[in-house]
This record gives sequence, C-alpha cells and structure tokens, in this order.
Amino acid sequence: MADQFAIGVDYGTNSVRALVVNVATGEEVATHVFEYPSGEAGILLDARDPNLARQNPADYIQGFLVSVKSAVADAASVPGFSPEAVVGIGVDTTGSTPIPVNAEGVALGTLPEFKDNLAAGAWLWKDHTSHAEAMEITELAQKRGEPYLAKCGGTYSSEWYWSKMLHCVRTAPEVAAATASWVECADYVPAYITGNTDPKSLARSICAAGHKAMYNEAWDGLPSEEFLRELDPKLAEWRYTTKAVPSNHKAGDLTEEVAQQVGLKAGIPVSVGAFDAHMGAVGAGAQDGVLVKIMGTSTCDCLPSPMDREIADIPGMCGIVPESILPGMYGLEAGQSAVGDIFNWFVKQLTPASYGTGGEAHEKLTSEASKLKPGESGLVALDWNNGNRTILVDPLLTGLLVGQTLHTTAAEIYRALVEATAFGALTIIRRAEEYGVKVEQVINCGGIAEKNAMVMQIYADVCNRPMKISRSGQTCALGAAVFGAVTAGVYSTVEEAQAKMTDVKETVYTPIAENVAVYDQLYTIYRTLHDAFGTTDFSGSLSGVMKDLIRIRNQARQGE
Amino acid sequence: MADQFAIGVDYGTNSVRALVVNVATGEEVATHVFEYPSGEAGILLDARDPNLARQNPADYIQGFLVSVKSAVADAASVPGFSPEAVVGIGVDTTGSTPIPVNAEGVALGTLPEFKDNLAAGAWLWKDHTSHAEAMEITELAQKRGEPYLAKCGGTYSSEWYWSKMLHCVRTAPEVAAATASWVECADYVPAYITGNTDPKSLARSICAAGHKAMYNEAWDGLPSEEFLRELDPKLAEWRYTTKAVPSNHKAGDLTEEVAQQVGLKAGIPVSVGAFDAHMGAVGAGAQDGVLVKIMGTSTCDCLPSPMDREIADIPGMCGIVPESILPGMYGLEAGQSAVGDIFNWFVKQLTPASYGTGGEAHEKLTSEASKLKPGESGLVALDWNNGNRTILVDPLLTGLLVGQTLHTTAAEIYRALVEATAFGALTIIRRAEEYGVKVEQVINCGGIAEKNAMVMQIYADVCNRPMKISRSGQTCALGAAVFGAVTAGVYSTVEEAQAKMTDVKETVYTPIAENVAVYDQLYTIYRTLHDAFGTTDFSGSLSGVMKDLIRIRNQARQGE
Repeated sequence: MADQFAIGVDYGTNSVRALVVNVATGEEVATHVFEYPSGEAGILLDARDPNLARQNPADYIQGFLVSVKSAVADAASVPGFSPEAVVGIGVDTTGSTPIPVNAEGVALGTLPEFKDNLAAGAWLWKDHTSHAEAMEITELAQKRGEPYLAKCGGTYSSEWYWSKMLHCVRTAPEVAAATASWVECADYVPAYITGNTDPKSLARSICAAGHKAMYNEAWDGLPSEEFLRELDPKLAEWRYTTKAVPSNHKAGDLTEEVAQQVGLKAGIPVSVGAFDAHMGAVGAGAQDGVLVKIMGTSTCDCLPSPMDREIADIPGMCGIVPESILPGMYGLEAGQSAVGDIFNWFVKQLTPASYGTGGEAHEKLTSEASKLKPGESGLVALDWNNGNRTILVDPLLTGLLVGQTLHTTAAEIYRALVEATAFGALTIIRRAEEYGVKVEQVINCGGIAEKNAMVMQIYADVCNRPMKISRSGQTCALGAAVFGAVTAGVYSTVEEAQAKMTDVKETVYTPIAENVAVYDQLYTIYRTLHDAFGTTDFSGSLSGVMKDLIRIRNQARQGE
Repeated sequence: MADQFAIGVDYGTNSVRALVVNVATGEEVATHVFEYPSGEAGILLDARDPNLARQNPADYIQGFLVSVKSAVADAASVPGFSPEAVVGIGVDTTGSTPIPVNAEGVALGTLPEFKDNLAAGAWLWKDHTSHAEAMEITELAQKRGEPYLAKCGGTYSSEWYWSKMLHCVRTAPEVAAATASWVECADYVPAYITGNTDPKSLARSICAAGHKAMYNEAWDGLPSEEFLRELDPKLAEWRYTTKAVPSNHKAGDLTEEVAQQVGLKAGIPVSVGAFDAHMGAVGAGAQDGVLVKIMGTSTCDCLPSPMDREIADIPGMCGIVPESILPGMYGLEAGQSAVGDIFNWFVKQLTPASYGTGGEAHEKLTSEASKLKPGESGLVALDWNNGNRTILVDPLLTGLLVGQTLHTTAAEIYRALVEATAFGALTIIRRAEEYGVKVEQVINCGGIAEKNAMVMQIYADVCNRPMKISRSGQTCALGAAVFGAVTAGVYSTVEEAQAKMTDVKETVYTPIAENVAVYDQLYTIYRTLHDAFGTTDFSGSLSGVMKDLIRIRNQARQGE
C-alpha cells in the first residue's frame, strides 16, 4: 500500500506549526512554523491594562494557509510523499481562547468595522481582564447550588470562556451587540477550513467546552439558560445547544478554496479541535494508567481513565472531562503553575557570576547539582513561586526555602528547587491514586524532559516510577495528526493510531533504590510544609522540620 | 590639672590592640595593633581535626609588650601626653580561652617541654573539640539537679572552661598531670603583667567565671568539688576558691620588668580582665536600660540591670551574671548567631554578576534594597542560618525564606535577610522586657552599625526604638581603658568614667511611624514562623502566612 500522511496543526501562543506525519510509522517528514504577524509576538496588548492579551483571528487563518502550504511543499522531496497522500488533518490550539463571531461565523475582528477594537479579537488564554466576572460566576454558582464547579476544582477562572464573554458584555457592548456566538479557537480553525462556520451547527470540542465552559452532559451540556440569564441575558442568548464531541469526530471536509491554497486535495476530513496539552498527551502516548507530563515553564499533566470505571470528583484536580483526551475515557487534567519558570527565575535573579548566565548557568548549576546526593544539601523548598494549581488550586501561595546555612551554595538551592517540582509532581500522582486512578507509567515531554537528565532522574527517584520521554519533540502537532489519521479512517481507534504513530525514547530514567528511600523522608517534610502553609486544617508540628533535614543531611554525608 | 591617660588592651582572635585614651575626654590619642605571629593568623590548627583551635600564650605576652610599647611611643607626639601621665591599664580578651598553667602560674605552652603540644596552649574560644564533654557536663548537672545551668540557658557549651579541661584530661593526660590550674586569657594577661601569677591567689574575672565556668556566689562560687569529682578528680583539684571580681577591682600593679619594656611607670594599677564584648558594651555606654549591640559577623547583646532590682531567670538568655558588665549590676548577655555572616553568605553564594562581588555587591544591594518600602517584597526570612543563640538556644535550627515569586529580586531577599536579623534583635528585646528588664535605648557598635544606614533604619523601624551608634570604633579597647581609669582612682564609679569617656555619634536613626506599623505586621509573621519551627508548643496556624504577606505587599505597592 502506498504511504499515507496526516497533518497536525498546532496553534501556540506566538506561532503555529504544521507537521506532516506518516500515519503508518509516525515519522515526521516535514514541518513549518509561522509566527503570528500581529501585535507583539502575535499578542495584541493595551498599554493601559497589563491584564489584556488578545489576538488577531486573521493570523490563525493566514497561519494555517502558510504553515500547511510550506510543510506540504517541504514534504514534496520525501520519498513516498505526495499531496494526494494526505488523508486527514487535525488541529489543536491554546485555550480558553474564545472569539466573537457574527451569525455567519465570521470573526468580528476580521471585519473592517471592528479591526481596531481589541474586544472583537480572540481573547487569548492568558487574558486576565475578567477577574471580577470570574468571581461573580463562581459566587452565583455557589449561591444557586449549581453542580457546575465540581469538575473544575471549585473555582471558575478569569481565563475561561464565560468570564471573558461577561467582561465583553460589560465593557464593550458594541462588540457584544454584533456577536452571535463565541467560538473557541480550537473550533474556529476547523470551522473555517471546512466551511462549517454556522455557529448554530459548527462542531464544538468537548475538550474546550468541558474544561472551560462548564459543559457536561450530566446537566444537559452548558450551564442552564436560567443561570446564564442571571449573569446577563446576552450569555443566555449565546448558549449553544449542539453536542460537544471529542476529536475522533469530524468537523467537516477541507473546502476547495482552502485546499487549493495549501496544495492539498479538497474534501479530506478535518478532526474536531482540542487543546494543545490534551493533543500533546495523545501524541506522547497517554493511555489508561499512563500519565503524560508536558514540562515547560509550567507543567500540564494529562491522565485518561476509562469511563466504564466510575471516578469520584477529585479535590484539587483542574478538570475531569469525559473524552477530553481520549474517546471513551475521562480526561483528568492537573498542573504545576511553575516548573521551568522557577529554574529560570533562580538563574536570572540569584545565580552568581561564576556560573555564567542563561543556558550556560543552567548547565553549570545542573552539573554541580547532579554531584550532590539526595538530602545532602539539607534543603527543602515549596514549588509555589507562581501559586499552586494542583492540588491546592490557590494562586495566592508563594515559594518557600528552608534549611539554608552559611555554607549553602547556589547549586544546592537549584537542586532543591528541582526536587520541589518533583515533590509537586508526586503530590498530583498521589492525589489521583487516592481517588482510585492508577498511575503506572509517566511519559514526559518538553524541553526540560529532553535535555536535563538530572531533572528526570530526580523525578524518577522522587516519584519512584520510571520516567520515560516522548520520542517526538512536537507532541502537540503529532497528537493532532493522530486524530487526523483516525478521522480519516486509517485507524478505527485513537489507541491503534497511537500504537503506530507515537513512541518513547530508548532512554528511561529508572528509580535508584537508595535515592528513593531518602526522597521518601524528604517528601514527608515537603508534605508537612505543603499542608501547614497550604491548607487550613493542618494539625501537625513543624518543630522537627529543621532537625530532620540536618539529620538526613548528616546521614547523606556520612554515606560518602 | 595635667592630662591623664589610661590604656586599654583588647585581645581579639587574630591580633591585640593597645589604645591610649585621655581619661578626661575619651579622646583616643594613639593605637597599635599587633598580629599574633604563631600558627595561621594566630591560630594553631590540626589538619586532622577541624574542631581544634589553640593559641600560643607567648603571643599574648609579646602582643602586650609590642602593642603597648608602640602605642605609647606613637602617643609621645600628642600634646599633653607623657608616659608618666598613664595612670591605669585595662585588659579584655576573647573567652572562654583557658590556659593550663603550672604551680607558678607559668603557661605550659611557653615551657620548652610542651612547646609542640597543642593541648598545652591556650584553648581558643572557638575550639570545638570538647563536644562530648559538654554534653556529659550538661547531663550530669541535670541528673544531679544542680542549679548551675539555670544562668547559662540550660546547656553547657563545648566552647566553655570545664568542657575544655575535661577534654584535656581525657586526651592529653601528660598536660593534665603538669597543670596546676586553668587560667582564662582575660586573667592570664593581668596576672603576667602584674606578677601576681600564683593560681591560688591571682585575680579571677567574674565575667569569665560567671559566663563560662558556672561561677555564682549563690552556690559558693564554682560548681561543688563533689560535682567536679564525679566528672573527673582532676577537675575537683583545679577548682579555685578565690572570689571572682569585676573589672573595677585591681589585678595588681605593673611590674618593673614589664614597665621598662613598654616604656611606662612601674606600679600603675592594672584592672581585673573581662571579655571583649562586655568591655565593648561599657565602652559604648551600656547602662541600666541601655542595651549595647556589638554587630559583626554575629551579634553580642549586653544589657546591665541593677542588682537591687530582682530579676528572674530569663529563658533563653545566654547568661545572667552579677557584675559581669558593670559593678553592682547583673550583666545580661544575649546574641544572634549570625548577622553580618548571613549578608556575606548571600553576597558570596547568591548574588548575580550585575551587583559585582564583595563590598561592591553589599553596597549595590543596599542601595537597591533601601529603595524598597517595608512589606513591598512580600518576603519574610528567619535569621537562623547559623542556628539561634537567643532566645531559642538551639544550634540545630536553619534559615528559612518565604514569599518568593517569579519576580523576587536579589535586593528584595537581601533586605528580607536584614529585616530578619532585626526581627531577631526585637525578639531578644521583647524577651528581656517580658521578664521585667526595660530596654529604653539601644547603642550599636561594629562595622555594620557604622557603615550601613539602611540596616540601622530598619532596626529602628522594626524595634520601634531610636538606634544610636557608639562614637568610638574601638569600643572594646575603650571599655578596657575606662576600667583602667576607674581602677586608677580617676573616677569613683564606672558610670562616672563612661559619662566622660564614652559617647554616641550625632546621627541617630529614629523610627518612622508608617514603617513601624508595617513591621509590626511582619514581625507577627516572623514570630509565627519562629515559634512554629523553633518551639515544640506552637499551636497557631501557618495557613495565613503567604496570604498575609501578599496582602501586606499589595498595600505597600498601592501606597506608591
């Protein structure tokens, strides 16, 4: 049989990547990245309001056309490839990044009359203008005793769908008046390239709707009209009633017009979109019992769990949404608010000249820190410099370091910060397992996982589980291509596609028993600090913390 | 009346300073510093044992002869000065630095047969070889229900007199066998220069005996023969029965031989010695209600309190010894295990290249930190990088920093560390006041106090008390000269001498009301952490700590 290919299109915060993948092998034969031309690195800002972050929806369209066309052109030289061999397309994006559209599904920000109106653009995931509205939504849901918050950690976020819509109603009524519906970026792109743009019928992603719009079939989809009307009648008007679906569903077929522009066959199937992290998890090999950690400046953890196995609400998990990662499975999402960001902060603010700066400093600190034994520094840190997303769901938490003496070195603190993020990772795993969701394997992806063996060994030792690394460095785009292949009918299930198209690297970081034993003691101390500073019902004592650290330190040094 | 002068001789860890002072005005007319020639910077070390630190007693003798002779020669050019106008000499030294002597009071280390035996030298204050013996002494005192520990914070130290003697008995029996008595350096020098070297009758300092040898008239001087015999019969043999006295007593008169060598009149009175910190406190102006803080790498706090006002044992105070600072007053001694050492640690280990290194980094960090408002960093630290001397008396405590975000800067942490030491200082003041000892004024001395206005303003704001600075930069030697003047009969009381010879600088750091209000809130947080990590009976909650810091930070920033 001739080779077949799928294309995954991954929309990030500053650029979009198209990846051409051989559906039989997962081989990535061509890729192209397009930087959004508008604003600053693709983001429209407002000097008067640092919370504002919007995008130009036209960048998404142009980004699709340029990146896919270029990738396809690049692939032309690959043996076995031809544009006709592309059988399906998948799309993932940031989110919640909702876009106001008119009755035809045209993004308002692309219309001449709204081109300079920031409220008519895409409201980027990290736009934080809607803080007050988020609180209002949380309070109303609590007051009315609605079930909506149970699946999203108890608090509705200013980053999410309804908060942004309500803020638009309040602050940009001219935009609200012209808006027929709000479409997540993850749905906007598939709608545009398939021509199925009618807001009443366009395909809506269960991943986006479930995690960000309080969509759940248990309560008939989106929150009730009555609830939304009490917030504002416009929100009730914008309540869509279509069934949100996972990405093994088809959003439509590639239109003639778009196909011509990118050099592909018209009519090939396009999958329903989803968020980048969730498709990244699929591209890394997420399965029942297989947790995928996408490690970057922060970390997103994705863990599927079969829907035929009942699971309780898990306190502190960001979201538990049916089919948001894999069809037929609950998608559990968790996260650490800062991982790489903490290491970068330390290098920028607190690393002496002898280590150099930037990447060199990371390397030198890592090299020195990797010579230390677990416990030898006598330090423990909390990884909360940017708050805690899981399991405390509290942005008003901060960092902590304990155990420093007059001899403590920068490399010791660097290692303690790495260990702190590993303890944070273990806390998430333990929480899932406490509620009956097993974590048998961990697959990591992202730059830190690929580049820093010390970090991965510490994670293996702290979590007492082998740490595997995704083979692909572009798991989001690969995950989108997996769904493209499934939607095209190459595979009948996502799992089948994953088995062929995804893999892990040969290098696996295996727990070292003696390190595991020390980290077990240090985790007890981390957890004591975690509960003492992060919860209101802590009843233990901290009087042993410093002495325990000294004892563990002395043991580690005696072992030399 | 012709000008009169006293000489203060201040024995430090690496050198000795002689200071010639006009007794009418406190004017310092000449000074000379002599570096000890033996060992490394005056310290005899043992490569096999990092805890060992000894000195050559001959260095003390040579140091007296050279420094006094040179200072007197330098003073010759000063109008009104003549060697005959020197009326008295005072001596202060480090301690506990006991020296084994023979029956004639000759230091064994100066005898040919012992010249290469480290155990025969002076056991420098920071010699830590006697750790096991210190524990043994503490345990025996506890077991027997002796009262000896009550005045020294409940634990006998490895740095102190009896620990060192017991270690010598156990490890250097040939030295113990030749030893008739152990004489503190503070007593050894006055004995030598006055010829009153007979161990049975030489003058013993109440400051040294009270703070380090568990001497107290309440139990007939030194610990009982029975107690000492249970430790080792040798210790009972070495128990002297002379009455220890304060430094307004005369140790003797300068011998003809020494007088000739240094160019002074024979027969002038020499005061009983005392420790450097205590004489420094006197030279800075310590009085009833006037706390003197000697700020260096660590801090020593001295506070006199009249003996006609009864005071209880104050938990966690290093020592409460009758007349150890001023005659007729209890001498209260407290301390912070690390102050300048913490700032130096931060500069050495955690300061980025942009601040430079060493002194330049301190200056730049101070300059940037002084622009911050109290509370603005959102940080609080514990000042325990070297343990806690007062009020927790616990070397097994360590540092802590809480409140860091991804934006926290080096200057913010530097300021938080300065604030932490100020909170530590306030904790000592509060403890004294809780037990009825008022602290109405604080006089600071040492390099940090003289050079760093930001540190002093923070101390004023945190402690809500004016911070004054000693006029003299050599308060220890000046304090010794004060006692020289008193012993010579120039003044009938030490207070009278202080009134004439000591003063503070014109610059006084006055509390700023709005800063006091913020630091009051931050101290509550510091104290919560202090009690939670440092005591076993803490019953409060830490769940508000991070949120309170964020609230205080936001208030500080809104005030901009």
